[in-house]
Amino acid sequence: MITSLSNDKIKHVISLRDKKRVRDEENLFITEGKKLFKDAPENMTVEVYLTGAFLRDLSNDNRNDLLEKLESTGFEEVTDKVMAKMSGTVTPQGIMCVMKKPEYSLDDLIGDVPLLVVLERLQDPGNLGTIMRSSEGAGATGVIMTGDCVDLFGPKAVRSTMGSVFRVPFLYSRDVMKDIIRLKKAGVRVFGTSPEGRSVYSRCDYGGGTAFIIGNESSGMSEEAKKISDDLISIPMGGELESLNAGVSASILLYEARRQRTG
Amino acid sequence: MITSLSNDKIKHVISLRDKKRVRDEENLFITEGKKLFKDAPENMTVEVYLTGAFLRDLSNDNRNDLLEKLESTGFEEVTDKVMAKMSGTVTPQGIMCVMKKPEYSLDDLIGDVPLLVVLERLQDPGNLGTIMRSSEGAGATGVIMTGDCVDLFGPKAVRSTMGSVFRVPFLYSRDVMKDIIRLKKAGVRVFGTSPEGRSVYSRCDYGGGTAFIIGNESSGMSEEAKKISDDLISIPMGGELESLNAGVSASILLYEARRQRTG
Repeated sequence: MITSLSNDKIKHVISLRDKKRVRDEENLFITEGKKLFKDAPENMTVEVYLTGAFLRDLSNDNRNDLLEKLESTGFEEVTDKVMAKMSGTVTPQGIMCVMKKPEYSLDDLIGDVPLLVVLERLQDPGNLGTIMRSSEGAGATGVIMTGDCVDLFGPKAVRSTMGSVFRVPFLYSRDVMKDIIRLKKAGVRVFGTSPEGRSVYSRCDYGGGTAFIIGNESSGMSEEAKKISDDLISIPMGGELESLNAGVSASILLYEARRQRTG
Repeated sequence: MITSLSNDKIKHVISLRDKKRVRDEENLFITEGKKLFKDAPENMTVEVYLTGAFLRDLSNDNRNDLLEKLESTGFEEVTDKVMAKMSGTVTPQGIMCVMKKPEYSLDDLIGDVPLLVVLERLQDPGNLGTIMRSSEGAGATGVIMTGDCVDLFGPKAVRSTMGSVFRVPFLYSRDVMKDIIRLKKAGVRVFGTSPEGRSVYSRCDYGGGTAFIIGNESSGMSEEAKKISDDLISIPMGGELESLNAGVSASILLYEARRQRTG
C-alpha cells in the first residue's frame, strides 16, 4: 500500500498528468475512473492505482468483470490522500491508470470508405475530446491533428473522449499538407470548413471518401488548407452568431455524412 | 478610478460572478470581454468596468462604435489589479459589465414554426452555453430549462453562449410538464431523446412545430418526460460509445430540423 505523497511512482503519475513533455518522451498517459479502466485495452495498461474504497464500493453488476481485469493487469493500493493528490480533480474516482499511447499510421485511418476529420491548431482539450467521441459515434475512420493541436493525452481531453481515445484511430501529423495530398490520391474528397464557405454543408455529397478540415477556434482554417480543399463548405447560421463551437461543427458534419450513408 | 480591491462595487461584481443566489435575487449577471459588451442590448447594461489598457488597445476597426456605446452606457475605470480580481479568469479581457437578465414568457418562445429545446437537469455550464449558441445558429425559437438545470447566468455558461444569451428566448420553467402540455396544445410535436429511442432521429419529420427534450448528462431523461413525448428518438452510434455529449446531441437534432426546413 502506497501511503507517501512523495513516493516516486506517485510523482511519476503526477508528471504524466501535468507535463506534455513527459507524456511525449515516455509515450505514456494517465486515465482516471472506472469507465476508462474498463474501456482500456489490457495490453496497453501499464500500471493501475486504486483505493480500498474503490474495491469495497464496486457495484454488483460489473464487479466480477472488473475484479477479473484487475487480477490480470495487477494493481497497487494507495490511500485516499495519495489518490486525492494523484487525481487533481475535485472528486477523485478511486482508480487511475498509466497507459501506453495507441499508435497508428495514416493507412490505419483510411478504411474502406474513409470518413476523416483533420484538425488544424485546435486549442481546447474539451473540443478535441468531443470530436473524438463524435467521430466514434458517427463511424469516422480517423482523426488527423496538426502538431500544434492541444494534446489528446492531457487529462481533460482524455476524459472528454469518454473512451474513444482507445478506439478511434488518430495521427499527429508531421506534415499535414502532405497527408492531405495522400488522402486526395486515395480518392478522398477534402472539404474545408469556414463561415465564408461557398457550399452549404447539407447540399454536398459525402457518400464517397470524405475528409472535413476544422480550423482553430478563433482564427479558423489556414489559407494553405483552404487552397488545398476540393470544396469550402459552411454550416448556415441564423441570428447574429459568428460561429458554432468547433466540436459541434465537426459533429454536425460527421453526422450529416453518416445520415447520407446510412439514412 | 477604482483602485481598491475592497471597493463595494467590486465586491458586488464578484458576488454576482460567484453566487447564483445573488444573481437570482437581484436579477442581474455579469459578462466579461469586448464581444459580450458589443452584443449586449444597451438598455440592459447596468454598469461597465474597464481598464485604461482596454481603452488604449482598442483596434481601429471598431474603435468608434465601441467608444460611442461606452459614452452612452457610461463606465468606470479600474486598475489592472482590480480587474484581475473581478475577472476570475487567467487572462482578464479588460472590460466587465453588470447586466439585467432578459426575461421571457412561454409565448415568446413559440414563434411561427416553433423549434424548441427542453433541458432536464442539465448540469454542465459549457453544455448549456453551447446549446444556446447552437440554438441561435439553427434558428430555434427558444430554450426551456427545468429549475434544477445549471444556471445560465454563471460566468462559464454566459461565456459559452458567445452572446446568444442576449438573443435566444429562454425560460426557467416552474412546471415543465405543464409547459410541455401547453406546447403540445399549440401543435408542437415533442421528441424525447434517448440512446434507447425507437425512431432514428434522421427519419422523423421536423417540418412542423418541434421540441426536443434533452436529459441530464449522466442519467438522461426522466420517465415522466419520456411518457409525455410524442416519439422517442435516438442518434445512432457506432463503435462502443454509450452516448454523445449533450450539447452535441442537441446541436445535431436542431441542425437536422434546420436542414429539413431550409435544405
